[in-house]
Amino acid sequence: MTPLKSEDWRDASLSSRLGYAAGSLDRMPVQRMDPAFIAAEAARPDRRVVVFSGDAPLITAEGDCLFRPEMAEALGTATHELYLGRQSDLPVFARGIEPEPDAGEPSHGVASDLRMLAIEGSLDVSHVALLGLAKSLLSWHRRHGFCANCGARSEPVHGGWRRDCPSCNTEHFPRVDPVAIMLVTDGDRCLLGRQPRFATGSYSCLAGFIEPGETAENAVRREVMEEAGVQVGEVRFLASQAWPFPSSLMIGCHGNALSTAITIDRDELEDARWFPREELVQMIAGTHREGLKVPPGISIASGMLRHWAGTD
Amino acid sequence: MTPLKSEDWRDASLSSRLGYAAGSLDRMPVQRMDPAFIAAEAARPDRRVVVFSGDAPLITAEGDCLFRPEMAEALGTATHELYLGRQSDLPVFARGIEPEPDAGEPSHGVASDLRMLAIEGSLDVSHVALLGLAKSLLSWHRRHGFCANCGARSEPVHGGWRRDCPSCNTEHFPRVDPVAIMLVTDGDRCLLGRQPRFATGSYSCLAGFIEPGETAENAVRREVMEEAGVQVGEVRFLASQAWPFPSSLMIGCHGNALSTAITIDRDELEDARWFPREELVQMIAGTHREGLKVPPGISIASGMLRHWAGTD
Repeated sequence: MTPLKSEDWRDASLSSRLGYAAGSLDRMPVQRMDPAFIAAEAARPDRRVVVFSGDAPLITAEGDCLFRPEMAEALGTATHELYLGRQSDLPVFARGIEPEPDAGEPSHGVASDLRMLAIEGSLDVSHVALLGLAKSLLSWHRRHGFCANCGARSEPVHGGWRRDCPSCNTEHFPRVDPVAIMLVTDGDRCLLGRQPRFATGSYSCLAGFIEPGETAENAVRREVMEEAGVQVGEVRFLASQAWPFPSSLMIGCHGNALSTAITIDRDELEDARWFPREELVQMIAGTHREGLKVPPGISIASGMLRHWAGTD
Repeated sequence: MTPLKSEDWRDASLSSRLGYAAGSLDRMPVQRMDPAFIAAEAARPDRRVVVFSGDAPLITAEGDCLFRPEMAEALGTATHELYLGRQSDLPVFARGIEPEPDAGEPSHGVASDLRMLAIEGSLDVSHVALLGLAKSLLSWHRRHGFCANCGARSEPVHGGWRRDCPSCNTEHFPRVDPVAIMLVTDGDRCLLGRQPRFATGSYSCLAGFIEPGETAENAVRREVMEEAGVQVGEVRFLASQAWPFPSSLMIGCHGNALSTAITIDRDELEDARWFPREELVQMIAGTHREGLKVPPGISIASGMLRHWAGTD
């Protein structure tokens, strides 16, 4: 499998410029199904390991997230060990260790926060993508140790890319939850809302999980009607993003409003308003007179808003 | 919640013209969380019920899929009863009954096949969409009766839109699996493949499940490399489709090929080829000299191919 040659073509899409996207990992999707291949990868002394204590990635004293195997093993007892694939020809594994609340921080590794790491930009973007994948997969294993079909304990196979039930033989694959997230516009203004949990002054795109039996476009229309009472007509796709909290696929869309009166669903939103484009530009620049702002640049909401504002 | 007014705006998107899409169902997403509301809907004598025996929808002697409650109850003992929402102001429920292999067909209702119903076009398209949703939801309940977190038996709530675990309190939502499906082109020809299970002579778009930590665009690139050894550069979104086998969200993309040599993954595909546009037009029209063809018109693959061929 030849990797994409950057000299031939450069990915200029919005999706490629968002957080958790810039992965150069080869997932080895065919090879990982072979237990002998996984065992050989796990035996390589040059393999690398990302380590999570619960949802917190551990970082070396040098600020790196890739541990050498002996270092990773010294950090704590593994609850899960998964094969992610190869990065720069080196096998990469993800190791989940039990959080030890009373023991302080594990020696040699400092527990960090993935959102903060992604925003700060101290890690290489491909490492942020690797941590995002590891977090989603580890979280799935932690929460899916039993077969949903019969209740028996299931077992990881394929390096952790599947869990099989030894009792009823059901195969379980890691869950990915598609979410519609939308930039809704009425001419030169856009609809943004804020949830109570948002940072002070922060407004963002509306969003919601896509349900069974629903197109992404209809999910956009349903969510905007539900949360803000605004009708949406035409919907176009803008971008997608893997969002590891815990494992969503954000599908970013542009929707044209057919109505403008806002009725806020107070169970979901604290506020929702139409923002003129020039006001959005100020929110992005951090110069808004009331201190209003948009989410950090790594999110798809921010990416779509910067794109529409013409500031990306 | 005012429905979209067709006099104001008509959905001309490709997504809206595919099978299982043309739903006029109001899912009542806020109201359904209230058990008293569900009970009131279930007590309405004018409610309608779609009935499934396993994966097979039942159809009345008149060719309808909406049963009156007393008729639905006579068809067999319910294993699951779910609230779908309101269609034309009438509450609609989905009822799963045990397949009775030795008892022949249930009286008053004939077991049918959803794929065939969707292709034949004998049912109203909004009813096909309703059956698709019902099939996805019923199938999820059948296969997710236990809590994946602790193995205890879980209980449906919110009319069947959530299952809660009484033991560990985990909330489980119906699963929707995002799939990337792609029209890959190299100038005036497109890449199609066939799986052994396809109808004789049938070729279609390549496709695969989107994995954790992956954008839809990168899933397109990974799958095409994996199945056909072809590199893909720019990827654009074309359409989406809810696909109830059992519960996928098809995300249809157009990918530009960066390489043209094909290496077929024989575990996935029986064949893969580049088809010139004029040959595709013949396959769509049913006039191909070797009898090659594309999938039925209700699928997103067919929709994307007809769109690109200029025959839609």
